[in-house]
Amino acid sequence: MEGQDRQDLGAGALSTAPAPIETDALIIGAGPVGLFQAFQLGLLEVSCHIVDALPRAGGQCVELYGDKPIYDIPGTPKTTGRGLVESLLEQVAPFKPRFHLGEQIETLARQDDGRILLATHRGKRFLARTVFIAAGVGAFVPKRIAVEGIERLEGTKLFYHPDSEALGRFTGQTVVVNGGDEAAVETALALASVAKQVTLVHRRDVFQGDEATVAMLRRRVAEGSIRLAIGQPSAVDDAGLKLITPEAQNLFLPFDAIVGCLGISPRLGPIAHWGLELVRKQIPVDTEKYETRERGIFAIGDINTYPGKKKLIVCGFHEATLAAWGATAIVFPDKSIPLQYTTTSTRLHELLGVKH
Amino acid sequence: MEGQDRQDLGAGALSTAPAPIETDALIIGAGPVGLFQAFQLGLLEVSCHIVDALPRAGGQCVELYGDKPIYDIPGTPKTTGRGLVESLLEQVAPFKPRFHLGEQIETLARQDDGRILLATHRGKRFLARTVFIAAGVGAFVPKRIAVEGIERLEGTKLFYHPDSEALGRFTGQTVVVNGGDEAAVETALALASVAKQVTLVHRRDVFQGDEATVAMLRRRVAEGSIRLAIGQPSAVDDAGLKLITPEAQNLFLPFDAIVGCLGISPRLGPIAHWGLELVRKQIPVDTEKYETRERGIFAIGDINTYPGKKKLIVCGFHEATLAAWGATAIVFPDKSIPLQYTTTSTRLHELLGVKH
Repeated sequence: MEGQDRQDLGAGALSTAPAPIETDALIIGAGPVGLFQAFQLGLLEVSCHIVDALPRAGGQCVELYGDKPIYDIPGTPKTTGRGLVESLLEQVAPFKPRFHLGEQIETLARQDDGRILLATHRGKRFLARTVFIAAGVGAFVPKRIAVEGIERLEGTKLFYHPDSEALGRFTGQTVVVNGGDEAAVETALALASVAKQVTLVHRRDVFQGDEATVAMLRRRVAEGSIRLAIGQPSAVDDAGLKLITPEAQNLFLPFDAIVGCLGISPRLGPIAHWGLELVRKQIPVDTEKYETRERGIFAIGDINTYPGKKKLIVCGFHEATLAAWGATAIVFPDKSIPLQYTTTSTRLHELLGVKH
Repeated sequence: MEGQDRQDLGAGALSTAPAPIETDALIIGAGPVGLFQAFQLGLLEVSCHIVDALPRAGGQCVELYGDKPIYDIPGTPKTTGRGLVESLLEQVAPFKPRFHLGEQIETLARQDDGRILLATHRGKRFLARTVFIAAGVGAFVPKRIAVEGIERLEGTKLFYHPDSEALGRFTGQTVVVNGGDEAAVETALALASVAKQVTLVHRRDVFQGDEATVAMLRRRVAEGSIRLAIGQPSAVDDAGLKLITPEAQNLFLPFDAIVGCLGISPRLGPIAHWGLELVRKQIPVDTEKYETRERGIFAIGDINTYPGKKKLIVCGFHEATLAAWGATAIVFPDKSIPLQYTTTSTRLHELLGVKH
């Protein structure tokens, strides 16, 4: 009976699992090339969803050089990573692409009807006619604290690179922040005004970040509102974190919560397991449609490779353009789509919401 | 003796002909793709000259849609043909490309040392290591008045689409303007205030252009400061132009000068005679370097063709980027050039004139 119950439960759970989101196109990666992919698909009237592991659009462009200058976007003599992404978001806005941020595509599998079933690590599923892998150098994921068993605490007591708006959850708590770069210092400073106690843990007594921020940290430490603990985490349990100091002493830091700020780095991750051909972690494509060897699966931007490939954003824009055209043969198999110009086409103006 | 004299003269003329301009790269066409080609070459430290048949940079973009909107330049939600060209000119400015405007490349021939000798219709010559054909749909040339022998008058008594600043030369003259579109009407109106007499010739009594401009023409005609002559030019001599009216009557219009405003249209022109492979007036290229079958001669933008080709500006930008890299193998045969990013490379910042 117990077995029976369980089986029923299982079947019930299965049948009430939400149906996958059906879409003409799924774009993996909301960096500049993924965003322009959505724009080009929009012009061709192909609907799309965009998934990105990060909590915001922009990819590398925002994570690695948000405020740094970019001079080689054609027709834009100077912008920044963030500026470029804002322009691309404005450009794609008329097509209202649906974003699924903070979700990473884990699995990808061809279905019998030729469509592609994809699922995120949170279990959201998509059934797509075409897939555009615009994943750059992979998903940007926070580096994990290298202590055995610490992953058990993730999401309950352990949080990596929390958004500054999400720090309220630490109100009144004893918090350990691990890291030495600007994000770690800024997080410790921000927590100092909400948490009961903040300890900043770093392997050495040197912190990165702009001068004023680091000076502010030193003042908070001097006045006692932030504690410093120099050492390497060595073990963890529910109650506290063990450190080994540079002098090989043991420290024990009790905590209510740990915040990891060890940087964000790209990892190819699940893409490696989708059965796609890989050459030095890159996906070979043709140069006619930037399609992989799998029909309907396109790869654009830094993640693809072909003779002459240069990892430049301007190249990704072209790849996205031809990939969008490649998709029309699958999404509209019976239509021949004429090339129209945004300058003159009234249909494109309608799609773009341009007033006449 | 007379023969001897002539031979000497010829030899003298030959030896004093200016030496060709030597350059790493010659770009044919100053449209958006030609301009971005100069930018990408500049980043790679390849010097260049740019030749265009039109008297200004911009190509089709300015001639055909100078004030019309463009929505599909990545990162530029909205611009115009002229706006895009201005941005590209600003972007390429740090590299100080040398422009040769109002000149059309007539001949192209491989030299024994592998370089390419090119000459314009005015006799200016270039000796280039690499050539980038960014000629769009061809050179934009004014449509000619279809009357036998009229070409003899070109440059002395016959002028096509003169610049508005150049109308002073018609002061006090009896001028015939041929054409029915807005440029023809505007030219007739402008000439009315400098010429002694202006006659606007068009095959029928209907004129294109915005309402106010055409209304102004009708007022000038009513008050007698512009004459209309409806008919088709049939013959010309130094003294006047013969017309045949729709009623099959002959008219004779004496003139000091004729101005042709019959529109500007692209013509592949001399490119067809350079020995390059052509497929439906387009030049086939590879997609690794966008090189033609002739080493060192690249073709980019609307003039090239390859599997998947779309005549879109965004594609031309990518083609120019990879073509620039293709040129480095010829210009710097012994150097391996690393990919640098404008975001971080201090060398690129130096070239771009960025202050730190």
